Amino acid sequence: MNSNDQTLNHGALGGPVRMAVDCMGGDHGPAVVLPACEAFLSRHPDAELILVGRLDALRSASQWPRCRLLEATEVVEMDDSIEVALRRKKQSSMRLAIELVKPGEAGVAAADVCVSAGNTGALMAVSRYVLKTIDGIDRPAISGLLPNLKGGHTTVLDLGANVDCTAAHLLQFALMGSALVSAVEGKPQPSVGLLNIGEEAIKGSEVIKQAGELLRSAAANGHLNFYGNVEGNDMFKGTVDIVVCDGFVGNVALKAAEGLATLFSSSIKQEFNRSILSRLCGLAAWPVLKRFKTRVDYRRYNGAALLGLRGLVFKSHGSADVAGFEHALNRAYDAARHGLLAKAHERICETLQAMPVTGVVETLK
Amino acid sequence: MNSNDQTLNHGALGGPVRMAVDCMGGDHGPAVVLPACEAFLSRHPDAELILVGRLDALRSASQWPRCRLLEATEVVEMDDSIEVALRRKKQSSMRLAIELVKPGEAGVAAADVCVSAGNTGALMAVSRYVLKTIDGIDRPAISGLLPNLKGGHTTVLDLGANVDCTAAHLLQFALMGSALVSAVEGKPQPSVGLLNIGEEAIKGSEVIKQAGELLRSAAANGHLNFYGNVEGNDMFKGTVDIVVCDGFVGNVALKAAEGLATLFSSSIKQEFNRSILSRLCGLAAWPVLKRFKTRVDYRRYNGAALLGLRGLVFKSHGSADVAGFEHALNRAYDAARHGLLAKAHERICETLQAMPVTGVVETLK
Repeated sequence: MNSNDQTLNHGALGGPVRMAVDCMGGDHGPAVVLPACEAFLSRHPDAELILVGRLDALRSASQWPRCRLLEATEVVEMDDSIEVALRRKKQSSMRLAIELVKPGEAGVAAADVCVSAGNTGALMAVSRYVLKTIDGIDRPAISGLLPNLKGGHTTVLDLGANVDCTAAHLLQFALMGSALVSAVEGKPQPSVGLLNIGEEAIKGSEVIKQAGELLRSAAANGHLNFYGNVEGNDMFKGTVDIVVCDGFVGNVALKAAEGLATLFSSSIKQEFNRSILSRLCGLAAWPVLKRFKTRVDYRRYNGAALLGLRGLVFKSHGSADVAGFEHALNRAYDAARHGLLAKAHERICETLQAMPVTGVVETLK
Repeated sequence: MNSNDQTLNHGALGGPVRMAVDCMGGDHGPAVVLPACEAFLSRHPDAELILVGRLDALRSASQWPRCRLLEATEVVEMDDSIEVALRRKKQSSMRLAIELVKPGEAGVAAADVCVSAGNTGALMAVSRYVLKTIDGIDRPAISGLLPNLKGGHTTVLDLGANVDCTAAHLLQFALMGSALVSAVEGKPQPSVGLLNIGEEAIKGSEVIKQAGELLRSAAANGHLNFYGNVEGNDMFKGTVDIVVCDGFVGNVALKAAEGLATLFSSSIKQEFNRSILSRLCGLAAWPVLKRFKTRVDYRRYNGAALLGLRGLVFKSHGSADVAGFEHALNRAYDAARHGLLAKAHERICETLQAMPVTGVVETLK
């Protein structure tokens, strides 16, 4: 394969969706990934899987329908450095799974999308190295979903790939997020909010103010539905379809939300376990509590997209259980089924051609 | 008064605690502040209040015991700019309340602490202008509490005063937070975590890495109990006593948590209201649900400290109700009662004398 190949794998708008799965990644590896794949296959008769990992670990899947195995002799561990993942484990299950979504000489890849629960830094670095970014995108971003008060979800990016971002990067994130939501959810002009510490345009750091200028300018040219600044609570309110932020802030907000969710569920449990009477109350309320639990279950939101690459890569939470990993597979399937890659590429090219970002940033300086 | 006065008002270790209250601030003004003050006074026989505001609005309090009124002819509105609050409303209730904690020529102020629910930007700017920062502190920070899994709370700063911070600022926040927790909670060496997107020292932006160096160096000299990097979820886990971050990240994390808490409570309500059967379940579980609600009630955590000033100022959430504002009064009372100001001053002087921050930062560059 030629790593500078500019051809894009245009995904699976028709025919089966072919998915490469890194079976060795995450805290639990095949013990979680394989049962999730089995459940996923039974629910998606038009999906085909390529399971990548140590052959002895994958043996139980050898007879599954619509499923092939690909041997990987190495595994990227959760605490391996990017250096190790990139330079010393070229036969890892993560790397081989990513290589499967890279188009070959005929412009077609073996798989439409790849899913891994492996360590985020390594997954991002290897994906970037193997797949390269699409034209006009400097840095890939991690995009995830958070539940919101409107009963839907908010797409948030970046969730941790980029700790230091320029205004131009934030604009690119907005374009990638818009492409994702319009492709997968069918909203032609999803709204974008810029995460800030106040709604007024004069709030925030210099980078955020510049990003606001860029986003307003893209909106004025009709390339973006920019709502304006939003605050931390808007992610859960559902004020906008997409919230854009740098990876440091996004990661902290995501993990803070996870922490608070854990605090809530543990406090509820403790209160219902406090005495025999409380337990009886809990028993009476059980059907309702269970519905509530399902509704706020963060496993339903597992599966983050690595956007901006010349191939679709999805990341599952390292600690995901079987249900969680299956949600990541669902998400990856949806993106491939809707031809996200081609649509994102098209949208980004159009916008950036009409509005060369470097120029705009220069005039802002 | 001489605005360059270096004397510090050493607070109220003995005798009554004298508190200045801006009665006009917040979304509800006197309608919330006065009932909260009345409840607070009845529970704190050693507290004295100076209520600041329009006299007609304060009339109902004119006969309260241990209470004086101070007329203010202007009010800083919630959407007033900093400029307006600072330059054009010199007779505002906010400004007069803050001036009451500024030491006079004899080194003693009329009040030990001031509380306002007014707009954060204005409160910070006016406090800084009137009171000045203490030696060694470049910028004041906003410090608040979040509930944690250990049943206690985590002190987090900065929550929004400073959007662009250097490593030296983060060190100063760590020192101020340590002074607060050791004074008010009686822990001699509270642990400090640096908010980051991973536990390893190599993670994060350049500023965060430099801040890690500074904090480790302060810890090596015995001036700080530095735990290391923490992540967003650690704020709610209770991994450390104090979490330090820049104001942008802190504000987003705080508001994200507020947003998620709202989503949770609204989802619980919806599920219990879904049908007659669900309502009966809710009725049966009511005593337990109520205990849970009390436990996670964010009003209990209302009351943020503006740290680093030559006077104690506390900020209530603008939308706080009576119970919430009373919590802010409680928090302000505790800080004054424990002589926070003097203790913070002492701790910061000692550390910075032993470890001149500018020098350390230079060597890191």
